[in-house]
Amino acid sequence: MYEFKIHYRHKKQLKGYVVMAKSLHTNLNVNALFLGPKSENAVFFREMMDYAVSEHIHWRSGFHPGDAALITSMDRHEHDYRETLYRTEGILNQLSAKLKNTSIPFFSPRYLGHINSDTLMVSNLAYVMAMMYNPNNCAYEASPTTTELELESGLDLCRMFGYNPQKAWGHITSGGTVANYEGLWVARNLKTLPFAISQHPDTKDLVSDKTDQQLKNMPTAEILDLISKLQERGIFDEIRDITCRGTGVKPEILGKLLVPQSKHYSWMKAADIFGIGQENIIPLPVNENYQTDVDHMRKITLDLIEKGESILAMIAVVGTTEVGAIDRIDEAVALRKECEERYGKSFYIHVDAAYAGYACAMLLNEQGEFVEYNDLANYHRSMGIMPENISWPKLEVYQSFKALKEVDSITVDPHKVGFIQYSAGAICMKDKRILSLISSRAAYVFQENDPFEENNFGTNTEINNRKMLGSSIMEGSKAGATAAALWAAHRLLPLNVSGYGKVIAAGIVTAQKLLNKLANMPSIEVGKHRFKAHIMSSPDFHMINFTFKEIGNDNLANHNVLNKRLYELCSYAVGRAYTNDFLTSSTILDYKEYGNTPWYYAEKCGFSRSEWEKVRCIYVLRAAVMTYCLRDEENFEEYWQQLQVTFIKKLNQLVDQEAKKFRLASNLYEPFIG
Amino acid sequence: MYEFKIHYRHKKQLKGYVVMAKSLHTNLNVNALFLGPKSENAVFFREMMDYAVSEHIHWRSGFHPGDAALITSMDRHEHDYRETLYRTEGILNQLSAKLKNTSIPFFSPRYLGHINSDTLMVSNLAYVMAMMYNPNNCAYEASPTTTELELESGLDLCRMFGYNPQKAWGHITSGGTVANYEGLWVARNLKTLPFAISQHPDTKDLVSDKTDQQLKNMPTAEILDLISKLQERGIFDEIRDITCRGTGVKPEILGKLLVPQSKHYSWMKAADIFGIGQENIIPLPVNENYQTDVDHMRKITLDLIEKGESILAMIAVVGTTEVGAIDRIDEAVALRKECEERYGKSFYIHVDAAYAGYACAMLLNEQGEFVEYNDLANYHRSMGIMPENISWPKLEVYQSFKALKEVDSITVDPHKVGFIQYSAGAICMKDKRILSLISSRAAYVFQENDPFEENNFGTNTEINNRKMLGSSIMEGSKAGATAAALWAAHRLLPLNVSGYGKVIAAGIVTAQKLLNKLANMPSIEVGKHRFKAHIMSSPDFHMINFTFKEIGNDNLANHNVLNKRLYELCSYAVGRAYTNDFLTSSTILDYKEYGNTPWYYAEKCGFSRSEWEKVRCIYVLRAAVMTYCLRDEENFEEYWQQLQVTFIKKLNQLVDQEAKKFRLASNLYEPFIG
Repeated sequence: MYEFKIHYRHKKQLKGYVVMAKSLHTNLNVNALFLGPKSENAVFFREMMDYAVSEHIHWRSGFHPGDAALITSMDRHEHDYRETLYRTEGILNQLSAKLKNTSIPFFSPRYLGHINSDTLMVSNLAYVMAMMYNPNNCAYEASPTTTELELESGLDLCRMFGYNPQKAWGHITSGGTVANYEGLWVARNLKTLPFAISQHPDTKDLVSDKTDQQLKNMPTAEILDLISKLQERGIFDEIRDITCRGTGVKPEILGKLLVPQSKHYSWMKAADIFGIGQENIIPLPVNENYQTDVDHMRKITLDLIEKGESILAMIAVVGTTEVGAIDRIDEAVALRKECEERYGKSFYIHVDAAYAGYACAMLLNEQGEFVEYNDLANYHRSMGIMPENISWPKLEVYQSFKALKEVDSITVDPHKVGFIQYSAGAICMKDKRILSLISSRAAYVFQENDPFEENNFGTNTEINNRKMLGSSIMEGSKAGATAAALWAAHRLLPLNVSGYGKVIAAGIVTAQKLLNKLANMPSIEVGKHRFKAHIMSSPDFHMINFTFKEIGNDNLANHNVLNKRLYELCSYAVGRAYTNDFLTSSTILDYKEYGNTPWYYAEKCGFSRSEWEKVRCIYVLRAAVMTYCLRDEENFEEYWQQLQVTFIKKLNQLVDQEAKKFRLASNLYEPFIG
Repeated sequence: MYEFKIHYRHKKQLKGYVVMAKSLHTNLNVNALFLGPKSENAVFFREMMDYAVSEHIHWRSGFHPGDAALITSMDRHEHDYRETLYRTEGILNQLSAKLKNTSIPFFSPRYLGHINSDTLMVSNLAYVMAMMYNPNNCAYEASPTTTELELESGLDLCRMFGYNPQKAWGHITSGGTVANYEGLWVARNLKTLPFAISQHPDTKDLVSDKTDQQLKNMPTAEILDLISKLQERGIFDEIRDITCRGTGVKPEILGKLLVPQSKHYSWMKAADIFGIGQENIIPLPVNENYQTDVDHMRKITLDLIEKGESILAMIAVVGTTEVGAIDRIDEAVALRKECEERYGKSFYIHVDAAYAGYACAMLLNEQGEFVEYNDLANYHRSMGIMPENISWPKLEVYQSFKALKEVDSITVDPHKVGFIQYSAGAICMKDKRILSLISSRAAYVFQENDPFEENNFGTNTEINNRKMLGSSIMEGSKAGATAAALWAAHRLLPLNVSGYGKVIAAGIVTAQKLLNKLANMPSIEVGKHRFKAHIMSSPDFHMINFTFKEIGNDNLANHNVLNKRLYELCSYAVGRAYTNDFLTSSTILDYKEYGNTPWYYAEKCGFSRSEWEKVRCIYVLRAAVMTYCLRDEENFEEYWQQLQVTFIKKLNQLVDQEAKKFRLASNLYEPFIG
């Protein structure tokens, strides 16, 4: 039997010790990172919160100590003064009541649904600490501390993905959606630069060797070199004004946007916002594992190129939000290379790794280097983060992560698998020269074009980027506190196997165990009904999709109804989430988004092809397993016992509910469908 | 003599009492809203922070009390457990040291620069309280509490601006920039709808009476009625697919974007992002008060219309970020009406009230109704918020605020004059039907198109908007904690004269007093140099712009250098902001952005027209006066004495610095200019 608990706890006495002793970081204890499901770390959390508040309070009172008090103790004695404080307290009482009444207990392992879990104490505390100073990372002048922290955290992420930190840049966005927008923004403007260059008499020599087709399909790196040349000639701004930034979008020049068929709604929004048009999205079909199908991707891409149609950008996903599928980034990169070599044509690649991006940490040793795939399972075991019988990732997933350094930009969400509280997205760009395509200025904050002094901000791009984030990003004012939260998390949890890797592994291990249990769970009898769990097997990451099927029910529509009812019983929909035993989420896998891919799962559940053809969608329960408390074998077993009981209870409740409603147990489905 | 202090403190004994006794809200004591410049409210703040943390801690530990502990006290005794806690503490120590070392003391009246001040205790506390629950306002399912709070706060803002809360909608964005983006997004998509309708065989009858010119220039309300008709016919989605959302942008159809010449950089970014092209921005020149010049606005608009060029949208600004100018919204609305009546042509109006929007509260009585202009000064005095000799606003500014209810959308930033910590912007839209032009779905969060049940979310737009913000906004995941912070602020400070009006008035009164003092300050002698302060007079809101001029210096470039040096001495640039006596910000008013408008100020300072023609920009010190602690006459006088001393000290420092550097006091300017 696997002794995970002992292994974990007494790792120093075991063989893993030699490796682990090398670095301080291996001593990270995952349990000590979070407030905990029973507020186990309440004492520490309180103490640190008090510290944060004290530090700020003293900072204020120590500022120009000689200044006369502007609010005296007599002022504070006024009736309306005290009344205002009491009213403040009353509003906070009200808010607390509301929060306690209807919030979702993401912190508990009883919640396995959306990409949510407990969040890091250090990030919560760092946020509060910085929030009181209220820095605004739009401009360095309003955030001398936290602008630095944002850039440092951005580079942490760049390094994790294998980008060269000398050339790359990363920063925090309000979420993955905005990060995706920014990726598309630079890609779009980049696409129109070669044309702009070819149209100006003073620059057309730079691209005089290119045909129109070549101008439309230049590799990113080559266009970036052109930016450098334009800057040397002092004509960059003028040329930028005749890219789409200045002239507006002409969809026919931009070409097509290739997006996985599962297309996250942020891409539909993005095609709308950036004036590209949703009809210029070409969906890339998925394979039976919900990854972009490599053969289709290749065929579609080459067809477009052969037809002379250019490609604005290819989007690949590392961790789809519905099933956690991880696209073959290595294949996308190889395909681009093939296009360059065979046709002299290229395209931009943006990876949406909002969900699974942080899992890259699991593949890096404490020096931040990729561990060879063949050594990885042993390494994970020697680090005490994976048991004997579980390994992650599959080779193809490993290769995808390893190829990230070749793509042009990457979205990753600290508020997902970075375990930071909302809102914190991020984008990493391989080559920061690309920023000049989107940069702007606001005189009152940036003064880049300061006419009085040569050595002011504007002349050096590096300093420029450092000083004034607002000039190089989509958003404007932004909370510096978010940067503090992210920076603190990255300092406590290095972006490798000894830090984030350890926390993420706990979720992966738990997800694997849960899948095994669900797959082997005996059927559940409720009256004359019998229900069996069916899992969607071998996920790429830690998202589990499953359904309960009534044995004997061959009607897919009924099956969908059953699972929708079950979801409702496992969600806020039936009353206070706080009193619920188990909370999950759900999704609909339908033909429109996935073609016939969901059919494989429907078939596995025992539905006929004709049922699939009739219904063409399947409703599934969906659980991102991020909890860190169940990696311990004993804890997990106890949890599983309880979860089984919960499933039985829910199914009973469901049958009972319907029986009551229609006084007839056999009418389990009829009520719900037309 | 004005007895502001007595009036304020003893208002209950004075004649104002009768009015004030009507409502609880008039008892708000502004001093009790903030932590205070000396942390005067430290005891309360700590207590409430502890309350927030306690409530959450107990919420966790009370969740399924029967569950076995997953982290035992023995676990917590492990060496690496304690080590992890100590490392967490160490990182927080580091962070605190960084924050204390380089943060900007926005909380203090010694800081008068960017639109920053102390932030409301109730918002800070509400944020922390909600953050621990980590709600995500993207989807109702992840934020049953805070989604409601966001919608409630959004409607508060709509009501303040005079929108009909039954028809309007407002929500929180990550900042004013994103709010502006959203306004332009709906305006752009709206513009292309009539054409789309005219192109579809099943809908063209709806607009068969319109010429092409009319289709390009329909009033917003008429287009919104068409949306309703399309929805009735069940063909809306299909038509939406052939608006620019589906087809991509065609700048020639969209028409021109009219933006005040001062154009905030977010509009340049917006024209880029939305594929409109910056060259399709038509700048509207400003008058000598930096407001959009009404005559020019009229001429440009009518010229475009007469030429058959359509107008995508007109942007007006309520509180420019450089001088706080407030555009004539009433005139923009009247002009649109004139265009409709004379030419049958209309356009969208978006107001960027990011800075001054909350000041609308000063014009509303406790019932939320606009107080007549002629009664306003007396009313303000009777409420104890304005002294005898100061009144606000000018009639034209009043009329602008009163006309806000006629415009299509409004940006307003809670993190500016809402006194909320970063990041919190907001947008209000007059008619929520407009949302259907930009709405989307994500199956795993929204399930709008749930095929199993009719009475699910999707069928009723109202419920739909309520439940899933992410489907109707630009961003995706977003912190529910921001909504809690804003909601709490709005509950404590009603959006009228008894709440926000009171706090904002304090800043306006202080700004006015400071202007008077600066204007009448005797010249400052430093060695053989004499310096005189010059103010930019009669600002529309509470932003002060001023410079120091050396008497006898007629060289504008030198003047600019002097003030830039002065700014540096009053900013983080010369060392720790914490040890500085006075901190401000600065900006450059130049020809490119303002035409010859800055000349009026240069002339007032005594520079010749030829100097202006040579330099064409003027560097000014810029102070948004938001502080609440100086409305008391005694406090203000003391502050002013100190500030004068500071100015003398800074000017001495400046002369001294240069003397040291060049060993010659007379070389005050030469070193800095080529």
